Amino acid sequence: MKIAFQGEPGAYGEQATFDYFGQVETSPCESFDDVFEVVTSGKCTYGLIPIENSLAGSIHQNYDLLLRHNLHIVGEYFLRVRHCLISLPGVEKSEIKKVISHPQALGQCAGYLRGLGVKVEPVYDTAGSVKMLKASGERTTAAIASRRAAAIYEMQILQEGIEDNVENYTRFLAIALRPVEPESDAKTSIVFTLKNQPGALFKALSVFALRDIDLTKIESRPLAGTPWNYLFYIDFAGAMTDETVRRALSHLGEYALMLRVLGSYPRVNMV
Amino acid sequence: MKIAFQGEPGAYGEQATFDYFGQVETSPCESFDDVFEVVTSGKCTYGLIPIENSLAGSIHQNYDLLLRHNLHIVGEYFLRVRHCLISLPGVEKSEIKKVISHPQALGQCAGYLRGLGVKVEPVYDTAGSVKMLKASGERTTAAIASRRAAAIYEMQILQEGIEDNVENYTRFLAIALRPVEPESDAKTSIVFTLKNQPGALFKALSVFALRDIDLTKIESRPLAGTPWNYLFYIDFAGAMTDETVRRALSHLGEYALMLRVLGSYPRVNMV
Repeated sequence: MKIAFQGEPGAYGEQATFDYFGQVETSPCESFDDVFEVVTSGKCTYGLIPIENSLAGSIHQNYDLLLRHNLHIVGEYFLRVRHCLISLPGVEKSEIKKVISHPQALGQCAGYLRGLGVKVEPVYDTAGSVKMLKASGERTTAAIASRRAAAIYEMQILQEGIEDNVENYTRFLAIALRPVEPESDAKTSIVFTLKNQPGALFKALSVFALRDIDLTKIESRPLAGTPWNYLFYIDFAGAMTDETVRRALSHLGEYALMLRVLGSYPRVNMV
Repeated sequence: MKIAFQGEPGAYGEQATFDYFGQVETSPCESFDDVFEVVTSGKCTYGLIPIENSLAGSIHQNYDLLLRHNLHIVGEYFLRVRHCLISLPGVEKSEIKKVISHPQALGQCAGYLRGLGVKVEPVYDTAGSVKMLKASGERTTAAIASRRAAAIYEMQILQEGIEDNVENYTRFLAIALRPVEPESDAKTSIVFTLKNQPGALFKALSVFALRDIDLTKIESRPLAGTPWNYLFYIDFAGAMTDETVRRALSHLGEYALMLRVLGSYPRVNMV
């Protein structure tokens, strides 16, 4: 069993992979596209992709990739994100003049960084920023990444938990070639398009509300080629094997121009 | 009258500013935050911010900024985005090995760039990429930006209209200290939060559907501090001065924990 994630070793995606799958062989991928590719080709059994962060919002690229590929969502995992300010060994915090990291990590520590009074510079990856810092040897630069990234590159943690908001979680989805049939408490993810007419979304949501099916997430994405028409991604409580869910989706089919089930999977109760 | 936009001179935001306001004095701002600041402080009469692109989706940062500031949306404008491949004068297209631009512009030309077989490198701004290219004098690098940016920096357009999808529009919002009262065909933007309970969003949308009010956009953003609770941003047809709209919002107030009107403004009919 080999699991694909996006990022360098030490990335939050790698941490989530070990938390969710246990001590497995991992395949670090340069891009989210690559994660989908290696699972599609069978090179990896599963991929683990971030889909939403409780502060920054959805990772829209992965919504688009779920639509473009024919993989199934088979699980979800919530990672508590704890950012560290990382420097070369022996550097003092007062020496830091510039901080590099992924734009999302920089954004999540924006208040802290303003307090520190440093220049910020976005780079492609959190763990990658530690790798770059080590290679450059710059003593006045720090990186923001996980504790794990600091350990892997033998760097120094100047401060841990520097995120502005402690309620910082990233939801990951496990993707695979074959669907699963979750036993009990499940969640299902779907994507659909609607005619662009008054009340269309209201009608679509009625198929869930009229059956007391709880929506846990709704996300809209532009439909390329037809401006101001949208794809809707919805997560709801229940499995495809539930009669109520089957009826709701059959009902939704009466309104939807396109409807696809992305997967039913065991639900993780977070809140 | 002075208008703030984000980006360097030659940015698409500057183009939209001249299209929408005519030949006005502009104030290029480094960040979207700065645009909101200079309008709030009264240094600029209006700001013009991109809110959504028909290919890339919403500019979520600006949704967050609309909530954080007390400005009003007073107008909208749709800009047709036409990207140009720009080089130093006298360079041939076959010499280009690397292309730099804003990640969104690179994404919108991804197919074209794969065809060209070049390395891509994200930078902070489209027009800024032309400025950087001119400063560096690198003959094997090209930038992606507007025709206007090429003219301002006296650079060469190697090819125009290189976006993968011609249906490439960006919707801009004009923001100001005081609200306007649009005369006839209007649009209204609101933001609200709901109790996290089954059917909550369905009930919220019912206040529009039951009154035949046409929704033109729905967007959800995470509510910081309470993971997996969302802010909903909705645009709908109609003005705050319409009795039906007032009743719908009063009805929505029965379900919403928080409800704020971001503005009513003249509607531009795009499609």
